[in-house]
Amino acid sequence: MTPRQNRDRAERGIPEATVARLPVYLRALTGLQERGVATVSSEELAAAAGVNSAKLRKDLSHLGSYGTRGVGYEVEYLVYQISRELGLTQDWVVAIIGVGNLGRALAGYGGFASRGFRVAGLLDADESIVGQEIYGMTVAHIDRLEDVIAGHGVSIAVIATPAAAAQGVCDRVVAAGVTSVLNFAPVVLNVPAEVDVRKVDLSIELQILAFHEQRKAGGPDGLGPLDADETPPGTTQYVEAVEA
Amino acid sequence: MTPRQNRDRAERGIPEATVARLPVYLRALTGLQERGVATVSSEELAAAAGVNSAKLRKDLSHLGSYGTRGVGYEVEYLVYQISRELGLTQDWVVAIIGVGNLGRALAGYGGFASRGFRVAGLLDADESIVGQEIYGMTVAHIDRLEDVIAGHGVSIAVIATPAAAAQGVCDRVVAAGVTSVLNFAPVVLNVPAEVDVRKVDLSIELQILAFHEQRKAGGPDGLGPLDADETPPGTTQYVEAVEA
Repeated sequence: MTPRQNRDRAERGIPEATVARLPVYLRALTGLQERGVATVSSEELAAAAGVNSAKLRKDLSHLGSYGTRGVGYEVEYLVYQISRELGLTQDWVVAIIGVGNLGRALAGYGGFASRGFRVAGLLDADESIVGQEIYGMTVAHIDRLEDVIAGHGVSIAVIATPAAAAQGVCDRVVAAGVTSVLNFAPVVLNVPAEVDVRKVDLSIELQILAFHEQRKAGGPDGLGPLDADETPPGTTQYVEAVEA
Repeated sequence: MTPRQNRDRAERGIPEATVARLPVYLRALTGLQERGVATVSSEELAAAAGVNSAKLRKDLSHLGSYGTRGVGYEVEYLVYQISRELGLTQDWVVAIIGVGNLGRALAGYGGFASRGFRVAGLLDADESIVGQEIYGMTVAHIDRLEDVIAGHGVSIAVIATPAAAAQGVCDRVVAAGVTSVLNFAPVVLNVPAEVDVRKVDLSIELQILAFHEQRKAGGPDGLGPLDADETPPGTTQYVEAVEA
């Protein structure tokens, strides 16, 4: 185990932005692992993840992982550390509610299983979809939602219903004890404080591309750079956003 | 036009993390607009977008938008400003390559059209899918990719093919002049420097949920908080990541 370990530094104080970047590092690391790479420098890993190397080192220091000068980080061990930190070394049981095109795409999404997410239930309100066999699972009727959650120990609900149905479904999964919801429906869900909701908006990445596309074409019009007092010299006040 | 304007501050110097948050603000603002809200305080808007209000004000100052003390921001004007900044006040023509479940879900995704993204082409290599009518569009054969790009003036390509096909498709769209690629395939695409690629990994948000779910259950084990020298008092070195 090459990297210096200092587990006292890890855990409780990890900034939310670091948490959001860990899956990005993990994706880059598993790519390296698949190509048989054993060690990686912070510069290489940072480039693969699309962040700067100082931020990467800082992020990984929160896990107690510092790498070794001249060697870098041990890929396999860093994969383990990040996976452990994110809770991916245990199985998470997921139910997908709403089995339209998106729900089907999610049901067959290879990226879930490889990260420890096991889809244990597919549910829909549409009688023509209920009973269909999708990726080896039979779509259950939404009436059975509470049974499926209790029976399979579902801890994360993925809501892929139309907007109008999402809040009702959310209320039911929360009442059934689920405290993590991934929401693909184009609506803001109201949940109690102890429930985490992450909302996926598939158009956000497109909007970021549009910004850059416009920039390449010369921008909306010719506006000047920022005043110096907006960004004090030597101070980087913003970090790159994670790609999601 | 209530908000103080200072367009000289806007544009070229906008940090990438601010760019990534603008779509999140825009989503919150259009929600307010739909409910007939005319003005919003930075605190309310920040809460709706899931960031802190100081960061929101800083971000919007990059657009030359400062709000009015005691009144806040004018919702409609801010929607216009952000849309203009992101380039959403013009139409972007999009082609979706790969018309499996995910491609179909994307073709029917309401969030694209409402943001100025017009899906002008659906392409697939599978003869059983080619010719199908999906949301009023006929799926074209992948052989026609270059024709579709040139004929419709496609500026953004959305790749929703299997991993093995993605790089080949990417090379073709780049050769045809497309400089923005949204990649849903589970593979890292190699592109020339002038091409922007954003990669969507649908499992990243699940991983962030898993982190919090684990935390609620008491963490992977009992590790201490960060040392003080890791996070100097009074210094916030990280920003919230955007939800995507």
